[in-house]
Amino acid sequence: MPFDPSTLKYDAAGLIPAIAQDAATGEVLMMAWMNAQAVARTLESGRVTYWSRSRQSFWVKGESSGHVQELVDFRVDCDRDCLLVTVRQTGPACHTNRRSCFYTAVREGEEVELMAPLL
Amino acid sequence: MPFDPSTLKYDAAGLIPAIAQDAATGEVLMMAWMNAQAVARTLESGRVTYWSRSRQSFWVKGESSGHVQELVDFRVDCDRDCLLVTVRQTGPACHTNRRSCFYTAVREGEEVELMAPLL
Repeated sequence: MPFDPSTLKYDAAGLIPAIAQDAATGEVLMMAWMNAQAVARTLESGRVTYWSRSRQSFWVKGESSGHVQELVDFRVDCDRDCLLVTVRQTGPACHTNRRSCFYTAVREGEEVELMAPLL
Repeated sequence: MPFDPSTLKYDAAGLIPAIAQDAATGEVLMMAWMNAQAVARTLESGRVTYWSRSRQSFWVKGESSGHVQELVDFRVDCDRDCLLVTVRQTGPACHTNRRSCFYTAVREGEEVELMAPLL
């Protein structure tokens, strides 16, 4: 079946959550949002492209930082309201310079930092 | 630092997305939503508990199906607006009886089903 980005289920703001996972290691790197056009651009270009809610503009991941995400596989969930992109991540995915945004764990009621920023 | 669920950033409906990942294999299983009380219940009970938007009630994953998610690690992202729970998943995570909800890929413009339902 040909894929049509308009068949995904977007929220009231026209956005769908997209989880980025390292294709090689399986590490979950980040979660951000796409609109239908960001979905289309990601598939066309092979460069993962989100919609920045704060800047209200397309966000070609790594365009300014160089920390690009090359698309490896694009997945849609059963309800068509969440995406999973597996990627080849250059450098850190997180704006704090950590490999993953999920660097804080909650263990025995305490927040624990698991990763240091990359140098 | 002690963890307080009220310090997370919830959307206008009081919800935060939570990604469930198989702790052993790294497979991303599903994404669902939690409110502050679901976060607290998940941490207290060790059973991953979401908020069902369709039923408007707590959803102890697997409570009716038996396909429970035992919490292994609980992670918060850099912006505190997304969660990652690593879990020991009993049986399929998806209501379609597939291991993961992300069983559809988009490849060369076509939707491709990657996984069959478990028997």
